[in-house]
Amino acid sequence: MADAGDIKATIERYWAAFSEGDRDGWLGCFADGAWIEDPVGTPRRDGKDSIGEFYDQSHSMADSIALVPGGVLNICGNEAAFTMQARPTIGGDVYAVDIIDAMTFDDDARITTMKAYWDPAAMRPI
Amino acid sequence: MADAGDIKATIERYWAAFSEGDRDGWLGCFADGAWIEDPVGTPRRDGKDSIGEFYDQSHSMADSIALVPGGVLNICGNEAAFTMQARPTIGGDVYAVDIIDAMTFDDDARITTMKAYWDPAAMRPI
Repeated sequence: MADAGDIKATIERYWAAFSEGDRDGWLGCFADGAWIEDPVGTPRRDGKDSIGEFYDQSHSMADSIALVPGGVLNICGNEAAFTMQARPTIGGDVYAVDIIDAMTFDDDARITTMKAYWDPAAMRPI
Repeated sequence: MADAGDIKATIERYWAAFSEGDRDGWLGCFADGAWIEDPVGTPRRDGKDSIGEFYDQSHSMADSIALVPGGVLNICGNEAAFTMQARPTIGGDVYAVDIIDAMTFDDDARITTMKAYWDPAAMRPI
């Protein structure tokens, strides 16, 4: 089982690398063979190539996107769930939407699955 | 697919019935054959009898337990995730712990699966 501190470090790197536009750093948080479902209800993206396409699509829709940690981050063995706010900047305006992520991890604290619960219609200017 | 408003109503009933000690009302939020994993990493409890035992065990450990909605409740099709705080009262003292629940629902907006992410060691007096 991964150490809870290592899982927390992966999540913090996931936030920071995505926000900084560090594609390789962000993809490095995932295990080979990982999948993501973001938002929940959309088709899963299997494998790092497909997860990289998700990163590219997300970043193509905004000048930048900050992932801001929310107040809750709970680690249970090799799983975790946390709150965060995604804040895209588009044409000088900043928007926000609240997200809950649920993740599983391998024994090296790399993400093996990720489900992101959020509603695109809830995106609002701040 | 269940209506998002019906899913929200189920979650609100889940909070209220558990807090009020309404065992039947709380169990009525679940579909037959539902399972829960609470907290994540512990053995799943399959079916309403086993979920009822979880309710009894939880309530036997405190004089009362309030479930207080957190700030985030995101519904994605037949799934949802939300934040809440459990506040048990034990011997006149009130404790609190932050929880993230992830649920799936049937087409009648009854809970079919529930995973609760929280750390018993994070329980604190308030």
